[in-house]
Amino acid sequence: ASPSEPIRATLFPGDGIGPEIAEAVKQVFGAAEVPIEWEEHYVSDKVDPRTESFLTWESLESVQRNGVGLKGPMATPIGKGHRSLNLTLRKELGLYANVRPCQSLPGYKTRYDDVNLVTIRENTEGEYSGLEHQVVRGVVESLKIITRQASLRVAEYAFHYAKANGRQRVSAIHKANIMRKTDGLFLKCCREVAEKYPEITYEEVIIDNCCMMLVKNPALFDVLVMPNLYGDIISDLCAGLIGGLGLTPSCNIGEGGIALAEAVHGSAPDIAGKNLANPTALLLSSVMMLRHLKLNNKADQIQNAILSTIAEGKYRTVDLGGSSSTTDFTKAVCDHL
Amino acid sequence: ASPSEPIRATLFPGDGIGPEIAEAVKQVFGAAEVPIEWEEHYVSDKVDPRTESFLTWESLESVQRNGVGLKGPMATPIGKGHRSLNLTLRKELGLYANVRPCQSLPGYKTRYDDVNLVTIRENTEGEYSGLEHQVVRGVVESLKIITRQASLRVAEYAFHYAKANGRQRVSAIHKANIMRKTDGLFLKCCREVAEKYPEITYEEVIIDNCCMMLVKNPALFDVLVMPNLYGDIISDLCAGLIGGLGLTPSCNIGEGGIALAEAVHGSAPDIAGKNLANPTALLLSSVMMLRHLKLNNKADQIQNAILSTIAEGKYRTVDLGGSSSTTDFTKAVCDHL
Ligand SMILES: CC(C)[C@H](C(=O)O)[C@@H](O)C(=O)O
Ligand SMILES: CC(C)[C@H](C(=O)O)[C@@H](O)C(=O)O
Repeated sequence: ASPSEPIRATLFPGDGIGPEIAEAVKQVFGAAEVPIEWEEHYVSDKVDPRTESFLTWESLESVQRNGVGLKGPMATPIGKGHRSLNLTLRKELGLYANVRPCQSLPGYKTRYDDVNLVTIRENTEGEYSGLEHQVVRGVVESLKIITRQASLRVAEYAFHYAKANGRQRVSAIHKANIMRKTDGLFLKCCREVAEKYPEITYEEVIIDNCCMMLVKNPALFDVLVMPNLYGDIISDLCAGLIGGLGLTPSCNIGEGGIALAEAVHGSAPDIAGKNLANPTALLLSSVMMLRHLKLNNKADQIQNAILSTIAEGKYRTVDLGGSSSTTDFTKAVCDHL
Repeated sequence: ASPSEPIRATLFPGDGIGPEIAEAVKQVFGAAEVPIEWEEHYVSDKVDPRTESFLTWESLESVQRNGVGLKGPMATPIGKGHRSLNLTLRKELGLYANVRPCQSLPGYKTRYDDVNLVTIRENTEGEYSGLEHQVVRGVVESLKIITRQASLRVAEYAFHYAKANGRQRVSAIHKANIMRKTDGLFLKCCREVAEKYPEITYEEVIIDNCCMMLVKNPALFDVLVMPNLYGDIISDLCAGLIGGLGLTPSCNIGEGGIALAEAVHGSAPDIAGKNLANPTALLLSSVMMLRHLKLNNKADQIQNAILSTIAEGKYRTVDLGGSSSTTDFTKAVCDHL
């Protein structure tokens, strides 16, 4: 895109605190003069039959057309007759990889100061197949599905990501000593891809051992790639190491190069509308979106402003033990640009 | 058993460092005058057709007859035509609950000094069903089985354990927002049992969130009960919080009140026979066996001796950054009795 022609991107502010933190992103993008024009889509209050969820078909089309989007938290309303919003997005947009960089934030102290890793989670199959049934009364089963296609796809993405980002090592996380066929196929696919990247060290780590190593010495890890449920578990564990989901960005990669960046924390209805929410995770996610668009200068500029604001420690939202409002924190980030 | 009649217990020294750390237990039990007579059983070098593994039928009968046992690490030899030793034991002895107390060790510094929890893992079904198959080329599936019977049994044990050990809270760990039927049944069973224990606080925590909370603030947890794979993952994560599997005891509870205490670390073939192994996990596991036998005085005495030796810090094995041999450390424990 030329400077005169802005890039269109879809924005799902989401529920609860979503609109407030989305506003923070808009402010910061405005201050940094990012050439993005947002196409805003809200979660509907009625089930759209074409998506079987509260997500409208138009919203999905918008992401498909633009190829990039940013998503705030969406609370899945309880009840029958519709699908989870997050799962609908993953499924309908073919968002096959969830990428979460996890890096200790200078100046924000946790028990760890040496975390610098990226989790890459297969996002479409595995334990999330939705196939479950009762065999007889008191006996239920659920199916975990692993396919060669989806495993190769996410493995390719992980090695590609490692190489493009100057990372040295990819660890495939599994439980193939027990699930020999399913996790075995996943590993087989990772090995095949690994052969094409001789410059990247490839290793396999059993999930239980991986979690133990992560809490003892996370510096041992670089890029981790894994089936859906293990990715769900380990990405949250890693977020915990650096302070929680309020500080952790994520981006979903989909078929045809779609990228939907996403704050993976909840919608925090208890503090919604009170100008108390921490916009950091959504802001850092928007930075991932900018990198995907190759707007690296803007991405660096905004990321540095966020990190300096946090490191300085003067403006911190309540969840980080401070007393700044969402808008104060956002203004501080703009001032650091 | 009267003082004149010793209690018989089965001892599986196991492979690798197993015999050395089993010897440490025998020394300490001798020094503490524990009225136990060991029935030692070694892993065979041939597959026993009755167990389909390197574990002999006589070994299993010994545990069944004695009702209690202690087990060192067993390396499952690679190859076909036999079952994993650990899984054979769980299956043949109906070891339905794996119990792992995880407590920060005074004087042994990790990033955490506030861990004091117990994980209780369902040990017989779930993702460990062994039922897997290829649907078509490139598509494999595995079955997770949850039954009402096994879920109630482990939930009963967890609440019983909490009450008997003066613990306040039981958290059921699950992913029932995705696996609604399987993990849903597990939760339903936990809720049923929880109603019978109004004095114990019951809560449900989603596994990804649980892992995040555990690394941020493990003091939030007391007793955790969960399906097989989650237990596998979380028990190792928790062991990592206090320093690793070399320091974490475990005990398996089986049908008819069988108890098989077990060091869950590996057989460490690289240091086997070199008098370098840390016997702490097996020693602390033997303490769990003594408590099961209601030999609480002996259990307290030995546990205190182990903990004081570690706290004192003069004798530490190589894995803990010290330079003591297995026998030096063991002698120090005996001296602290
Ligand atoms: C909300 C839930 C369905 C979701 C998941 O399990 O994938 C969440 O935990 C996540 O990681 O995005
Ligand atoms: C060795 C392996 C089969 C075993 C398991 O997965 O149960 C181990 O990790 C454990 O926790 O005892």
